[in-house]
Amino acid sequence: MGPWGKRDDILVHRCEPFNAEPPRHALARHTLTGTESFYSRNHGPVPRVDAEAWRLRVDGLVDRPLTLSLNELRERFEERELVATVQCAGNRRAGLLEVRDIPGEDPWGPGATSTARWTGVRLADVLAAAGVRSGARHVAFAAPDVSRLVDPPQPFGGSVPLAKAISGEVLLAWGMNGRPLPEAHGAPLRVIVPGWIGARSVKWLEHVTAQAEPSDNYFQAVAYRVLPPDADPDRTAPGTGISLGPVAVNCAILAPDGGTPLPPGPTEITGYAYAGEDRTVARLDVSLDGGRTWAQAELDAPPSPWTWQHWRLTVDLPAGETVVTARAWDSTGATQPETPAAVWNPKGYANNSWDRIRLRTTGPGPDAR
Amino acid sequence: MGPWGKRDDILVHRCEPFNAEPPRHALARHTLTGTESFYSRNHGPVPRVDAEAWRLRVDGLVDRPLTLSLNELRERFEERELVATVQCAGNRRAGLLEVRDIPGEDPWGPGATSTARWTGVRLADVLAAAGVRSGARHVAFAAPDVSRLVDPPQPFGGSVPLAKAISGEVLLAWGMNGRPLPEAHGAPLRVIVPGWIGARSVKWLEHVTAQAEPSDNYFQAVAYRVLPPDADPDRTAPGTGISLGPVAVNCAILAPDGGTPLPPGPTEITGYAYAGEDRTVARLDVSLDGGRTWAQAELDAPPSPWTWQHWRLTVDLPAGETVVTARAWDSTGATQPETPAAVWNPKGYANNSWDRIRLRTTGPGPDAR
Repeated sequence: MGPWGKRDDILVHRCEPFNAEPPRHALARHTLTGTESFYSRNHGPVPRVDAEAWRLRVDGLVDRPLTLSLNELRERFEERELVATVQCAGNRRAGLLEVRDIPGEDPWGPGATSTARWTGVRLADVLAAAGVRSGARHVAFAAPDVSRLVDPPQPFGGSVPLAKAISGEVLLAWGMNGRPLPEAHGAPLRVIVPGWIGARSVKWLEHVTAQAEPSDNYFQAVAYRVLPPDADPDRTAPGTGISLGPVAVNCAILAPDGGTPLPPGPTEITGYAYAGEDRTVARLDVSLDGGRTWAQAELDAPPSPWTWQHWRLTVDLPAGETVVTARAWDSTGATQPETPAAVWNPKGYANNSWDRIRLRTTGPGPDAR
Repeated sequence: MGPWGKRDDILVHRCEPFNAEPPRHALARHTLTGTESFYSRNHGPVPRVDAEAWRLRVDGLVDRPLTLSLNELRERFEERELVATVQCAGNRRAGLLEVRDIPGEDPWGPGATSTARWTGVRLADVLAAAGVRSGARHVAFAAPDVSRLVDPPQPFGGSVPLAKAISGEVLLAWGMNGRPLPEAHGAPLRVIVPGWIGARSVKWLEHVTAQAEPSDNYFQAVAYRVLPPDADPDRTAPGTGISLGPVAVNCAILAPDGGTPLPPGPTEITGYAYAGEDRTVARLDVSLDGGRTWAQAELDAPPSPWTWQHWRLTVDLPAGETVVTARAWDSTGATQPETPAAVWNPKGYANNSWDRIRLRTTGPGPDAR
C-alpha cells in the first residue's frame, strides 16, 4: 500500500505536501476511479480534524448564520449522491514543461483527473437555510490547511460565483465511493464543484461565506490563473490573469501507455475526454500520422452530466515507432489547441493541447529491414 | 445604397438567396453594428410577410396553444431590449477554404458577426403564457423561407433546448437598433438566441413548438453540424456530427485590413473577440512573429453579457511585410486552435483558429536595402 492508502504504483510528485497521481493504466477503462487510485493534490500538510469537535460555519451576507455539526448537516438536509469528475488545473503540466521550465510546479501527467461517487448535501440547501441576502455574489470556502510553499504561508481557500454555488450540483460531501471521506481527501467535509477546476473543491471545509466579491485567498486571487507567457508569476498583482473556473475541453490517452513494446497489428487505444460545466464531449479523434488524418473513437455516455467520458478505438499499429495523437471536440464545436507551446503559461495550468503518446512495436520496424 | 438597404461596399456572396457581409473596416471600432452594415445570411428568398395577416402560433406540448398577432404580442408581454451579437456558424470559412475546398459553401470572412440592439418580448414569457408541459425538452422554430439550395427544397427552421428557450435572454424581436425589424432581417418577428450560432435565431418566425426532441428540420438535423474531416456531407445521415449551438471562443482582426500599405511605426491593431453562452473573453493576444511572442491587447467591457468585445493594441510595425496574428482566451481558460487545418470540416463551420492578416508598409522594406 502506498502513502495515504494509495496504490503501490501511485506516482508521487511530493510527499509533503502529499501530491500524487495514478499511472495511466490505473485510470484506463474505469469510469469510476477507486479511492486508492484517485489523485491527491495538496498545498499543505493534511490537517488532522477532530470530527466530533468540528463545526461548519456559514456566515457573511446571510440572514441566519449557521454553525453545524456533521450530524446536524446530515439530519437537517436531504442526502444527495453525485458521480463527478475532479480535475486539477495542473493536469498535463508535464507537456508544458517540455516547452519551457516552470520552476516550483510539479510535472503532473494526465492522472490529475479522477472520478468518484460523492455523498453529501447540496450547498444550495444549506445556503437556503442560511438565507442568502441580496448583495451576495460569491460564496467563499475556507479550510485549515496552510501552504508553506508560499511566502508568507497561506491557508487554502477559494470561491465560486453564487449562481454556481446554488446550482444544485455543488455538494458538501462526507462520502466518497460509498465510504466515509478519507482524511487525505478532506474529511470530515469537502466541497465538490463539478465542472470546475479541482482547486474550488475545497477539502477540510470549515467556513462558508456569502460575500459580494470573489475570495481574496491566495489560491484564488494569485494562483490558479493563466498569466500571459511573458509574465513573472512572482511579481504579478492579485487579480492578474485569467481566473480558472469551468474546465475547457481536454483529453488523454491512457492505454497503451508506451511503457513496453507491443506486437504490431490491431491495438485498442483508450483514454478519457472531459469538458466542464454545461459542455459535454461530442467527438474524440485519433491520428496515427500526427494529425494529417483522423479516425473517430467510440465514446462512452457519461455516468452523469458532470463526468469525463472514456473512449476507445482499435487501430492497426504499424511495425516500428508510432506517435498516437488524440483530440476531443466539445458540444460547442470547440476543439483542443494543437501544441503545448500554444497554451504555455508561467504557472503551467490548463494544458489542453492535443495528447500524444509514442508507441513502439516488438520485432523489427520497417527501418530495420 | 446596396441591396436590401445595405451599404454600398457590402461584400455580396450571393444575390439570391441574399448573403452578404460588411468589410472589416465597417465593423472596426463599432460596438454596435449599424443595420446597413449587419451581415445577411439567408437560405432562401426573403419572404414577403403581410404583417397584418401574420400570426404567431405557439403549440406542441403546451397547456394553452396560442395564436398571437404582433399587437397581441406587444400588449400581452413586457417589452424587453437586449444588445446581442449574432454570429453565423460559417463565419471565417474563407480560412478553411485555403486548406481544402468546400464546394457549395460561401467564403465568409470575419464579417458574418454583427451586434445590434434588439427589441421584443422574452420567449420565456410567451412560453409561460402557453404553459409548457412536462415532457417538453426542446423548443422548435419554423419559418416560411424555403431553401432551393437543398434537394429537395427545405423550409428553414431549428430548435434550442427548453432550458435555453426559457433562460430570459432569448427574445422574439420586432425591433433592431431602435427601428422596426427590416424585411431582410426577419420582419415582422424573429428569434434572437444570444450566445448561440446565428442559425438558431430564426427569421420570419411563424411557429413555436414545445416538443420532446430537437427539431428534425434539415438545418438542424443535417446542416450546421461539424462532421469529421473525411465525412461526405452529401451522404451523412441526419443526426451525424456535432450539432452546433453555443459559440466557441473566436476573434478577428478588423483594422488595418491589409488592403493598402501603411507607414511603418506605431500602428493601432483593432478587432473583435467573442465567446458564446456563459463565457466571456478574458484575454486577447497579438503576435508579430507568428506566435513566438505575444502582447496583450486592451479589451473593451462588453455592452451586455451577450456580445462581442472589441480590442486594440498599438504595435511598432516594422518596414516590409508583417503577419499579424491574434488569439483570444475565454473565461474557462480555453484558447483558439493555431491553424485552420486543425479545425477544417466538410461544411466549413466554426473556424475559430488564430486570425492572421498580412500588412505591408509603404517605402522600402528591409529586404530592399
